Amino acid sequence: MSLHPSVAAVRRPVRATLERLEPGEKVIVACSGGADSLALASAAVFEGHKLGLHIIGATVDHGLQDGSQEQAAKVVAQLGEIGVDETVTATIEVKADGEGPEAAARQARYAVLDQLAERLGASVILLGHTRDDQAETVLLGLTRGSGARSLSGMRAAFDRYRRPLLQTARIDTETACQVEGLDVWQDPHNRDFAYTRARIRHRVLPTLEEDLGPGVADALARTAEQLREDADFIDDIAEAMHRELGGTLPVETLAQYPAAVRTRVLRIAALEAGSPPAELTREHVKAVEELVTGWRGQRWIDLPGHLRARRTNSSIVFESGPFTTSN
Amino acid sequence: MSLHPSVAAVRRPVRATLERLEPGEKVIVACSGGADSLALASAAVFEGHKLGLHIIGATVDHGLQDGSQEQAAKVVAQLGEIGVDETVTATIEVKADGEGPEAAARQARYAVLDQLAERLGASVILLGHTRDDQAETVLLGLTRGSGARSLSGMRAAFDRYRRPLLQTARIDTETACQVEGLDVWQDPHNRDFAYTRARIRHRVLPTLEEDLGPGVADALARTAEQLREDADFIDDIAEAMHRELGGTLPVETLAQYPAAVRTRVLRIAALEAGSPPAELTREHVKAVEELVTGWRGQRWIDLPGHLRARRTNSSIVFESGPFTTSN
Repeated sequence: MSLHPSVAAVRRPVRATLERLEPGEKVIVACSGGADSLALASAAVFEGHKLGLHIIGATVDHGLQDGSQEQAAKVVAQLGEIGVDETVTATIEVKADGEGPEAAARQARYAVLDQLAERLGASVILLGHTRDDQAETVLLGLTRGSGARSLSGMRAAFDRYRRPLLQTARIDTETACQVEGLDVWQDPHNRDFAYTRARIRHRVLPTLEEDLGPGVADALARTAEQLREDADFIDDIAEAMHRELGGTLPVETLAQYPAAVRTRVLRIAALEAGSPPAELTREHVKAVEELVTGWRGQRWIDLPGHLRARRTNSSIVFESGPFTTSN
Repeated sequence: MSLHPSVAAVRRPVRATLERLEPGEKVIVACSGGADSLALASAAVFEGHKLGLHIIGATVDHGLQDGSQEQAAKVVAQLGEIGVDETVTATIEVKADGEGPEAAARQARYAVLDQLAERLGASVILLGHTRDDQAETVLLGLTRGSGARSLSGMRAAFDRYRRPLLQTARIDTETACQVEGLDVWQDPHNRDFAYTRARIRHRVLPTLEEDLGPGVADALARTAEQLREDADFIDDIAEAMHRELGGTLPVETLAQYPAAVRTRVLRIAALEAGSPPAELTREHVKAVEELVTGWRGQRWIDLPGHLRARRTNSSIVFESGPFTTSN
């Protein structure tokens, strides 16, 4: 019996990731019960056991939805049937903060997975994000209009986390689950159009594929990879330049930087002066840049965080408010 | 009577562009008769005459559509009513080449506008592209998935060309024309869904605005500006590195470059070796990069243009075919 192409499409990148480990090493597979993470768990067991690895299936009970406990128990049972060496359930309490419930849940999930890895001695944590998740993330970033970093999507690897399926189509994980007889959980959030990501998945991306051609998700994922390389490179340079300036912002030096570096150095400096990252926009930074490259005697630039940028003695300085006069 | 905000929104950036010229200088406004370029011509006359500039209205007869001659004559009449100092019609013949009729028409248009500027002694040519054109261009680039350069849209200024409306909403140019009683031409191509740009304008962008929020066109235009700065910066570095290597590609040196620079240096080298730019993809370049960063004895990488990349003597070399053996 030949291997189904979708099963192969999932196993191949999982093998490439696990091959770098030594026999006996422990691997956590984070599994929600969705098609992507079930297909990932199955591939991790198949490829991991050939390599002598110990595969731990982990599921996180978010407590966000009714029946989340039953869902977690069902995933644990499925992980057992798939053949993992060990299963574990972690319960988290999600407190919504300024960034909303999705971001809070994500943070709590990583924190608990990190704790699990420490406790169980796992060297790697596998996450099931697919190429389509990546395309959605790029589109989310586009709506923010904030440059290469926000378009560069998710990393394939960071710390002990790996995303082997980041170039694999979601449809392949769904088909792989069908072929292997795995009963897939449909996250109700994925169909709740109050969530931007659900609208991107079910309305925006299909429209793009219909009107621009079927390669859009691939193109977005490729774009993300390239822009991440670019952002890593320029951010590193800007941070080095900022360190070199040692807290000063001399106009003459800044004027010689290329725009890509200058705007980043000014942004770093404004953040250090206390401007909140979520509120400091490209427009703010460009207005500060005008004090360098378009100097015509501007009085000051108001910035979020009760800050003012001003040009004095051939330097840019940030002053903290409250101020008694207004621009 | 107070100035209509849409008229102000068009005039403001036109004034900022024209202010940099000296009285008596000649300015060409390229005008198709569409809302963007008619509003541009009207603003250029209003602001330009205050500054003592000589405004030339130019229209190009593409001969692509039936009645293009009548349309050109109508635009000339409109430009006269608007109050330009001089009108000129240029006729071009468009020969479709490999890049299709749209690209061929664009090239011919720039060539004839350049000739006009030379002949009439104009220092600046104004183009009417709006923020929405820019957003559409970014989305077109996204579908190609080829990185910062293809997402960086149109330049606000190059050679003698200026695009003062690149941050102005198209709706403002349409409203300005209504307010000023200008009869706007509807280019039938803009409604012909055989053209990708028409699908982006009338289907993709409206879907994005509906599902992701009304700021999408703005966000795309801002993204373009930032990615252009990034691409300019890294492309310059990569070209300098490539020159410094003087035709060689030593593995040890390439391995020390950041990925963003290494992939660009390898791409430049492959293009120099004769690979056609339209066919050389990111995947090809990444496969060549693997000869540097993921060396495991690969035999060679086949590239478009009957080329092979190979690692020999600790260098990457490109060999020209035809080859008698295959990979």
